[in-house]
Order: sequence, then C-alpha cells, then structure tokens
Amino acid sequence: MIISRSIEEIREVVANWRLEGCDIGLVPTMGYFHDGHLELMRTSVHRADKTVVSLFVNPTQFGPGEDLDVYPRDFDGDCAKARQVGVDAMFCPGPQEIYQSGYKTEVSVASLAAGLCGVDRPGHFTGVATVVTKLFNIVLPDYAFFGDKDFQQLRIIQQLTQDLNFAISIVGVPIVREDDGLAMSSRNAYLSESERQEVLVLYKALQLIRQRVFESKGTIDTDDLIKTAAALFDKNNSCSLEYLSIVDEQSLQGLSKVWGRCRALGAIRVNQRIRLIDNMALYR
Amino acid sequence: MIISRSIEEIREVVANWRLEGCDIGLVPTMGYFHDGHLELMRTSVHRADKTVVSLFVNPTQFGPGEDLDVYPRDFDGDCAKARQVGVDAMFCPGPQEIYQSGYKTEVSVASLAAGLCGVDRPGHFTGVATVVTKLFNIVLPDYAFFGDKDFQQLRIIQQLTQDLNFAISIVGVPIVREDDGLAMSSRNAYLSESERQEVLVLYKALQLIRQRVFESKGTIDTDDLIKTAAALFDKNNSCSLEYLSIVDEQSLQGLSKVWGRCRALGAIRVNQRIRLIDNMALYR
Repeated sequence: MIISRSIEEIREVVANWRLEGCDIGLVPTMGYFHDGHLELMRTSVHRADKTVVSLFVNPTQFGPGEDLDVYPRDFDGDCAKARQVGVDAMFCPGPQEIYQSGYKTEVSVASLAAGLCGVDRPGHFTGVATVVTKLFNIVLPDYAFFGDKDFQQLRIIQQLTQDLNFAISIVGVPIVREDDGLAMSSRNAYLSESERQEVLVLYKALQLIRQRVFESKGTIDTDDLIKTAAALFDKNNSCSLEYLSIVDEQSLQGLSKVWGRCRALGAIRVNQRIRLIDNMALYR
Repeated sequence: MIISRSIEEIREVVANWRLEGCDIGLVPTMGYFHDGHLELMRTSVHRADKTVVSLFVNPTQFGPGEDLDVYPRDFDGDCAKARQVGVDAMFCPGPQEIYQSGYKTEVSVASLAAGLCGVDRPGHFTGVATVVTKLFNIVLPDYAFFGDKDFQQLRIIQQLTQDLNFAISIVGVPIVREDDGLAMSSRNAYLSESERQEVLVLYKALQLIRQRVFESKGTIDTDDLIKTAAALFDKNNSCSLEYLSIVDEQSLQGLSKVWGRCRALGAIRVNQRIRLIDNMALYR
C-alpha cells in the first residue's frame, strides 16, 4: 500500500493507474478507523480497480469549542487496517498541504446545510463541501464512498457533485452498527462505560419511529411520532436530544406526514461533551 | 470546428483528444465576440493542442435590473470568428443544460469579491466562480484563458483554481483596445455615438494615474492620484464614476501608497444604463 503525504505524489500515483486503464475509488476519512470506515473501503475495493483512502482531520469543518484538538488519531493502526482490506493508497496530507496561506474559497450548498446538524454546527458543511471538492480535484476518482450515517453530509456531497459537474459516482454505504445497535463512530471512543449504555437511547428512538411506520396502515403524522420517540429521553440524564426530525431524503425538508423516501435523523449531546448522530430510512 | 450543445458530447470530444495525447485550452465566454475574445482564442490556439471556447450567457452572474435579457448575441457571427482563428470546438449549452432543476451549490471567494465591482454587483462573482468551476469540471482543461480587462474576475479565478486544487494553468491575456484606447467589451455595442466618445474618460483617468506614477521619483499617495484623475469626470455629464481604486494585485485591497505590483481599476456608468470597466497596471 502506498502512503503519500503530498498532493503532487498522490496525483502521480493516480495518473499512472489511469494510464494502465484502472478506474479509481476514493474514500475520504478523518481516520481512527472503525468497521464503518472499513466497510466503505471494502465497497470501494470491490467496485473500483484502485482504492485511495484520504486521511485528513479537516480543521475547517470543526467549529469553535468543538473537538478538533482531541479528535482521536491512530495513524499506524489506520494504515494496518486499510492495508488489510486491500486499499491501494492512503493520502495523508498535513493541514498546510491542503490549506496554503491566503486560502479564500468556499463551496456551499446552503439550503441543504441550514437545518438538522447545520443548526448546531454553522459552517460545518461548508468546511466539508470545500474539502471534498478539493479531494475530488486532487484524486479525480470515478467513485467516492460516504457513509449513510452522515446522511446530511452524503446528500450535500451528492448535490455538489451534480451541481458542479464532477464526473464522479457518489456511493452511499449503509450504517455499520455495534451488536446492540449503536452506530459506529470515531467519537464513540470518547464515551465512558455508563455513557456507552445511555447513548443507545438515540438508536432506540429511531427504531421506535421505524417500527410505528412499518406497523401502520394509514398515513402518519410525523409530529406524533417524534413526540413519542422524544419521550424516551425524559428518563435519561446524560443524553439530551439536539434534534429528531423526519425529512424528505432529497430536500432534507421536514415532513408533516410520513411519505415516500423519507428518513428519521437525530443528534444527541452526551453530558454536553460529546455529540453523536444516527438515522434510519422509513421505507423498505 | 465542432459545435456542441450538451455536456456529454463536449466531454466525449475532449476525452478523445486526450486519448490522442493532446492538451486542452479553454476560453470561457458569453459570446458577441470582439477582438479581445479573439485574442484569448489566439493565445489558446498558440499554447494548447486543442482549444474549446464555451459560449454561455450565465444568468447567475447578472443581478436584478442588469442587462441579462438584452445582452448582445450573434451566434452565427461568433462561430465564424472562432473558426477563423482556429478554435477546435465551441461548447454552447442552454441554461437548462448548466443549471438543472434543484440547483443549489455555490462557489465563493468572498474576500476578493467584496470590493470594487462586487459593491455594485453583489452575487456577481459568486455566479462567475460557480459557473467557471462547472466549466472546468466539464472540460477538464490544462489551460484556461481570461482577459485582464475583468481583472477582479481573473484574480478570483486564479484564487479558486489554486484553493480548489484544479490542475489548470490560468492565463491572463492583456486588454485589447480600440485605436483611441477604449477597452473592447461586448457592452460597447450599447453605446450611442456621443456616449462612445464620452466613455473615453475612464481610459484617460487610468492613463493619467499611470503617467503620474511613471513620472514620479518618490512614493506617491494614492488618495491624491485618485482625486486628480476623478476630477476628469466633473465636466462629463453622461458618465458617472462608480469607483476608481488603486489596489494590490494579489489581495485586491486598496493601497495608501503606490507600491509593488499594484493596479488602478475603475468602473463607470453611462447615462445610468451601461456599466463599463477598465484597468491598468502601475508597474513596468
């Protein structure tokens, strides 16, 4: 597996693969790999001739007071895991390689970024959209793989790819969960043992919503559903609900009735310190 | 010369040229070609193996009340001129080809777009930066050619190209002027005969600034220079000065002294109807 820290070098690696007739898959990550990341990589290895994993903890997608400085890192462990699933190259630039002095440009998909996680994290999705645009231009992949767990991010990237005419297929990969249902996340590493149990409430709330939708025969008001699911949080002290919404998958706009391809999304804050998200499709 | 109206088609044309080992020059235009456009094309034909000229009157870079609806067009004349200077393909999409329904993404270089023409045309440079990003992704050129006349636009495109990691050389091409000094512009077609004479005041103001700078031996206050040059406008009724500034070429920030690579830029409005711009470098 090639490990490259410079833009020039990874470009040359990819250009040579292209000359050999290979197509390229890109898996953008911030490292500290769990099975969710590995599933993205396996999907890419299966789909594309060559897989590039980028590992870059992108400062511009963290807000003031967020966890940029303590974001978990394990470079050697990450390289070993990526190698094991068959990744061909890791692109691991430092911040100066990505943001040269005088950096000024922003890519934004404002109408998809305003709600849901965008309320608590203003600027976050502009940071994501901009760095992904840069990674797309650096690697010029045929496919790029993103987890369904960050569903709002996935939609924003699908939209910018279409809007900016990138010739890239964006592939959403299903959420990988722990045995008890917790969505895998690098931020789960922050949880104490008791918090680890309590955060399951978000998964349970989403499951309750899905169960009610699947059992129902008529149309269902989303207000009632959300009220019922949000009530699960009352008994739970360490986790506060940041939002719980049922939205149209395309527009990310809230729905008054469950209809079509819609999805429940939620975010919680654990003891004010840790922010976790999860979501579930409400159709089969 | 190939004339293509669809993204898919121009992509295929360019991909085939690439397979033949050609490099590609792109000249983005809004049509109604004058010798300034043709100079961009000649420069590209000279530099690159194949030249693509895009012709697209981009609605998102026009503000409310601006001249989108009356912007001059001459498709057949434009094709004949492009063919004559050796252009290989014209890409002439309609608005629906470029902005599909549900379009949401914006590219902005806010700090370079705020001043100068950005004051009178809020949103203009976001429209420009976004459509140029799209054209870059559609054509994937090795070079792209822009006129020095739209100097703020040139700087914004240089900046976004660097910031978003496009592997494209941006080439600025010197202003082409009429015999009496008027910078060529498609919008000159709007001028009456008497207006055509009066608009020369902007060129004369810039020339006066340059002359003073070149004649001077010490450092010069820009305030004094601009006051002297702006005084040329007092006797002139049909042209009002929108701005006249001396800025650093890199940052586009105003300077208190003439120093380094700096440039005088100006915009006038003719009988409130027509907006014209021009600029001059203040170094040799």
